[in-house]
Amino acid sequence: MRYIDIRSDTVTQPTQEMREAMFKAEVGDDVYDEDPTMKKLEKYAAEVVGKEDALFVPSGTFGNQLSIFTHCERGNEVILDDSCHIVVHEVGAASVIAGVQLRTINSDKEVMAPQDIKNRIRKGEDDLHFPSTGLICLENAHSNGRVVSLENMKEISETAHEKGIPVHLDGARVFNAATYLNVDPKEITQYCDSVMFCLSKGLCAPVGSLLAGSKDFIQKAKKKRKLMGGGLRQAGFLAAAGLIALEKMRFRLKEDHENARYLGERLNEIPEISVNLDDIHINMVFFRINKDINFREMVSFFLEKGIKINPPENGELRFVTNYWVSKKDVDYIVETMKEYLKK
Amino acid sequence: MRYIDIRSDTVTQPTQEMREAMFKAEVGDDVYDEDPTMKKLEKYAAEVVGKEDALFVPSGTFGNQLSIFTHCERGNEVILDDSCHIVVHEVGAASVIAGVQLRTINSDKEVMAPQDIKNRIRKGEDDLHFPSTGLICLENAHSNGRVVSLENMKEISETAHEKGIPVHLDGARVFNAATYLNVDPKEITQYCDSVMFCLSKGLCAPVGSLLAGSKDFIQKAKKKRKLMGGGLRQAGFLAAAGLIALEKMRFRLKEDHENARYLGERLNEIPEISVNLDDIHINMVFFRINKDINFREMVSFFLEKGIKINPPENGELRFVTNYWVSKKDVDYIVETMKEYLKK
Amino acid sequence: MRYIDIRSDTVTQPTQEMREAMFKAEVGDDVYDEDPTMKKLEKYAAEVVGKEDALFVPSGTFGNQLSIFTHCERGNEVILDDSCHIVVHEVGAASVIAGVQLRTINSDKEVMAPQDIKNRIRKGEDDLHFPSTGLICLENAHSNGRVVSLENMKEISETAHEKGIPVHLDGARVFNAATYLNVDPKEITQYCDSVMFCLSKGLCAPVGSLLAGSKDFIQKAKKKRKLMGGGLRQAGFLAAAGLIALEKMRFRLKEDHENARYLGERLNEIPEISVNLDDIHINMVFFRINKDINFREMVSFFLEKGIKINPPENGELRFVTNYWVSKKDVDYIVETMKEYLKK
Amino acid sequence: MRYIDIRSDTVTQPTQEMREAMFKAEVGDDVYDEDPTMKKLEKYAAEVVGKEDALFVPSGTFGNQLSIFTHCERGNEVILDDSCHIVVHEVGAASVIAGVQLRTINSDKEVMAPQDIKNRIRKGEDDLHFPSTGLICLENAHSNGRVVSLENMKEISETAHEKGIPVHLDGARVFNAATYLNVDPKEITQYCDSVMFCLSKGLCAPVGSLLAGSKDFIQKAKKKRKLMGGGLRQAGFLAAAGLIALEKMRFRLKEDHENARYLGERLNEIPEISVNLDDIHINMVFFRINKDINFREMVSFFLEKGIKINPPENGELRFVTNYWVSKKDVDYIVETMKEYLKK
Ligand SMILES: [Ca+2]
Ligand SMILES: [Ca+2]
Ligand SMILES: [Ca+2]
Ligand SMILES: [Ca+2]
Ligand SMILES: [Ca+2]
Ligand SMILES: [Ca+2]
Repeated sequence: MRYIDIRSDTVTQPTQEMREAMFKAEVGDDVYDEDPTMKKLEKYAAEVVGKEDALFVPSGTFGNQLSIFTHCERGNEVILDDSCHIVVHEVGAASVIAGVQLRTINSDKEVMAPQDIKNRIRKGEDDLHFPSTGLICLENAHSNGRVVSLENMKEISETAHEKGIPVHLDGARVFNAATYLNVDPKEITQYCDSVMFCLSKGLCAPVGSLLAGSKDFIQKAKKKRKLMGGGLRQAGFLAAAGLIALEKMRFRLKEDHENARYLGERLNEIPEISVNLDDIHINMVFFRINKDINFREMVSFFLEKGIKINPPENGELRFVTNYWVSKKDVDYIVETMKEYLKK
Repeated sequence: MRYIDIRSDTVTQPTQEMREAMFKAEVGDDVYDEDPTMKKLEKYAAEVVGKEDALFVPSGTFGNQLSIFTHCERGNEVILDDSCHIVVHEVGAASVIAGVQLRTINSDKEVMAPQDIKNRIRKGEDDLHFPSTGLICLENAHSNGRVVSLENMKEISETAHEKGIPVHLDGARVFNAATYLNVDPKEITQYCDSVMFCLSKGLCAPVGSLLAGSKDFIQKAKKKRKLMGGGLRQAGFLAAAGLIALEKMRFRLKEDHENARYLGERLNEIPEISVNLDDIHINMVFFRINKDINFREMVSFFLEKGIKINPPENGELRFVTNYWVSKKDVDYIVETMKEYLKK
Repeated sequence: MRYIDIRSDTVTQPTQEMREAMFKAEVGDDVYDEDPTMKKLEKYAAEVVGKEDALFVPSGTFGNQLSIFTHCERGNEVILDDSCHIVVHEVGAASVIAGVQLRTINSDKEVMAPQDIKNRIRKGEDDLHFPSTGLICLENAHSNGRVVSLENMKEISETAHEKGIPVHLDGARVFNAATYLNVDPKEITQYCDSVMFCLSKGLCAPVGSLLAGSKDFIQKAKKKRKLMGGGLRQAGFLAAAGLIALEKMRFRLKEDHENARYLGERLNEIPEISVNLDDIHINMVFFRINKDINFREMVSFFLEKGIKINPPENGELRFVTNYWVSKKDVDYIVETMKEYLKK
Repeated sequence: MRYIDIRSDTVTQPTQEMREAMFKAEVGDDVYDEDPTMKKLEKYAAEVVGKEDALFVPSGTFGNQLSIFTHCERGNEVILDDSCHIVVHEVGAASVIAGVQLRTINSDKEVMAPQDIKNRIRKGEDDLHFPSTGLICLENAHSNGRVVSLENMKEISETAHEKGIPVHLDGARVFNAATYLNVDPKEITQYCDSVMFCLSKGLCAPVGSLLAGSKDFIQKAKKKRKLMGGGLRQAGFLAAAGLIALEKMRFRLKEDHENARYLGERLNEIPEISVNLDDIHINMVFFRINKDINFREMVSFFLEKGIKINPPENGELRFVTNYWVSKKDVDYIVETMKEYLKK
């Protein structure tokens, strides 16, 4: 049975073209720096985001944590939004691996005010009691489904660099952000010193993310990647799929965004449902159902109809479109929702 | 020359009585558990805050960090106010020693809303992406000079305990809080599982703080105190002064509070000065001068007049009263301020 | 050009059968626990080493470090041989990720004497100054090319378990050890509480290792794997190749061992070369050349002849046989060596 | 009742002169850098060991760990003897606070062979798999009671410095070493970049140790001391006693050594006792009793006679002389031993 899976874009299966590329991939021992396909991927990835060099890592969490570990000294303070992925969904790793102190900001719709950041920046040499701010982390697109403006990124970047503090971008969905802003990804990544982005979400590759930055940064990160157990051997298979993700799939994300908007608007027509249409920037639709629902039952109902959905978090449901979800599928999802609510 | 020192209550000199007690102190090797004066202090300290046991530590920072280290597993999340001492003034130690992730809350006047805490509590078993909340830290009196209400502490304590999470109180100035609330310290400390309080601030002892909690907690903490280098030898000298701090000095803090209020009111009469009188709960007066001031020059001017003050932080000046500052000294401070502003 | 690569068994290319299995692999999101091929691999892997459960990890280093991180509390002591992979080749990771103190033993041929281990085991409750021994790590086959006896493992295991201390086996090449000892791998792994073994070395899979242990241990490890950034998405591709590695390739290692012995004996016939034949237990040949050699030149010479070799470490060369190195290749390697030495 | 306490030199009570100096000590807030007595102590301490600067710390463990934390980056390797205090008696702190990997050497009588150290030094830039050696730690006098020769220290120091690696000396009893070698302490400390020495052992001060090194090193250490909770307030009381320890008491250690030797020789005359006389370099006598002894009973017997002794470790007893143990006391100890063995 074919399922329509709208739980996340991480569930995306690779395309047939990816499978073929993997089948034929030329591979070597990447710990020996001898995997030609991986080298090609890393080179191209660096170009795409306008950085000197890039490094393959097994996951987005790995890339973010490796970046913090490489930028910071232990005991440094890292300023970031209280709801970002690094704070909420990475198991507290920054306190274990990099050993840094997170200094979180509560911000409206997760857009940090540059002034709030400025107020929190500290230099250890100023006061015996202060840790030094070692890094500022941004996330764009944010996992709340919204895209942060270039202006906001620019201002934060300038604030940081004035104080000599680097900026890392959690760009797990940076190509969704670029698509929404209708700009080259480099327009976004120019405001960060390092960026992590994922091949495995909307881009459909099976496994892997990239960390990009300066030559020096990536060289240091490479050693720490080994320490963290991320030195892979014949990784060219994953790179082969990743190349297609980067060379082709990132250019079709607009379709997912249009489907998400269409899904949001159609759901919003249902009386019991309120969709925050303003928040549909990328491929995510967040909404509430104003009715008493047994969500366990609802998830089962959808599953029987061939649709995989997640239960709500804090009362809010999230449907995510991707390559494998067509406009026709969206119609079917909406019909299924109507049917369920009529029950 | 005798100085009036109102920079902080940490500058307090010990009393003559303390010096005499130290001179005559019976001491032993406290690592061997053989210092009789230390034993007496720890026993009495535990009683004062209503806990099973207590442990001497070299400083307030040491006590707070030891508590976090003892309560938490590495990688746990600790919920606390964004402006509290542990976040702002302990050099990022929690990320180094305990290895925990701080999860800070921005709160009005540093009084955390129980609901904000509730929203942030997480249980690692619920989601593969979540660290577990290991501890909630309160601070009372807060270093903003205000005392948190018993109601607030009670509510937070209940919220925490419902989820099986311990509460630590940074009670560096817990006796100032008790004095302000006009309650026995135990009324405050009943809402925490562990409490750190300082002997060396308003209580005038030269060195040291205490960490109190359950027998089991203190036993574990004792080992970790050794690890952190806090196992002292003939520490009974410090304990001798500490006993006087606890047995006598804590009962006279009302005087410091009255002097602070008097100082605040008198300063507020000066046209250029605005004192936030509502915030004078304990021995601290925060105020602003609405005039262009060369603060370096101002600090020098006061010093020449025999008064030690600190320059402002974020535009705000803080004057702190203590045992060595009389009401007459307050008058002199106010006159000096008037004189300076007239220049 | 086809190269004979005898630098390591990590350089092994996957077989055509592996490529085909990857091409057809049924995959799902493994973070959601929905990758059927990965589930099959982990289930089979657990069976092979006689443990309740197993977990895929991106590398051997990842698996060893995850195991230490899961078994130990921070600050624990880990007893292990001074020359083992965890000490020498994992970038000091145990001090960063698990935060443990390594307590190394110098042993003859890297076979730790049970009595030496016994002498170093410590219980923190016995003395305020002592950390607690949290884990004992063995390595079999050792990267010195030798296999440790079952008797030695048994004795160490008993010593450890008497004191309630778990044993982890770095079994990167555990199937080489089983092949040498001519026993089922379970005969070896019965003496450890957890074992890590690699798919990507002699077994020819492109990427990945497995960590196996009790159900409870693996459940805890799964969360910590996420923390370390090892939660992969459609990892079934790697699992598909891994299944062939485990189901087929591990049964042919004898061939590599025979080729290694043949290589060792033939090299030893060359007057300038002394091979320690006693140490050829698996697929590794260590030898010295009693002649003044420019090793850079030598490596180039071999490369031109189509053979990849590493320069010596501490004067010792290591040639490693694998699936892609035939007996005929061995003859060619030996002839090339003779040719080089004649120059 | 007055006890003769020969369990350790940590149990030493301060002298009457120290009590008087403490009574009259001029003190200030040392976190504000305003304690005149502390400043005097730190200045003098630096001079005594020939370093640019020195810093007071609450204990020897604190000083050693602070030194490792200041010298090393997290993940560095530290080379040191397997039986030294840092490995055996500091609760595994180096893995928690500095987060370094200990690389221990088994050496004859705890004198590390320079060649053994050389073999273990690693530079991370040489190999992706290697951590970098960040520090070499020596201990002199060693807690085995022996003094390491200047020649050995010189050779190790040169080996380290050739590779750009600093050397830390755990000089808890460095003045005992200087006394034994009959040299100025600077003759010993010239071979290390930092040295920790204790005021509270043979020197009789109640609490505290010093860490000395370059100006830059001490400045960094000062911040990290704050992080570790070692910023004390009116610490001048401890400094006052410490000054007497350094100015006077260190010059009388010869007496303790002579008493130890006398004790060793007299004990060795007892048939059942074998003292390793060669190992009596300082104030420690190690010996075995060749008779079946109930050590609990023996400790009680001695206690009743007014002598405090420890039970044996690994079959070996240790008696330690100090300022409060006279030659006459030694005679009494020996008589008591004879009496006990006759029973
Ligand atoms: Ca995917
Ligand atoms: Ca004080
Ligand atoms: Ca605040
Ligand atoms: Ca391979
Ligand atoms: Ca002493
Ligand atoms: Ca030894």
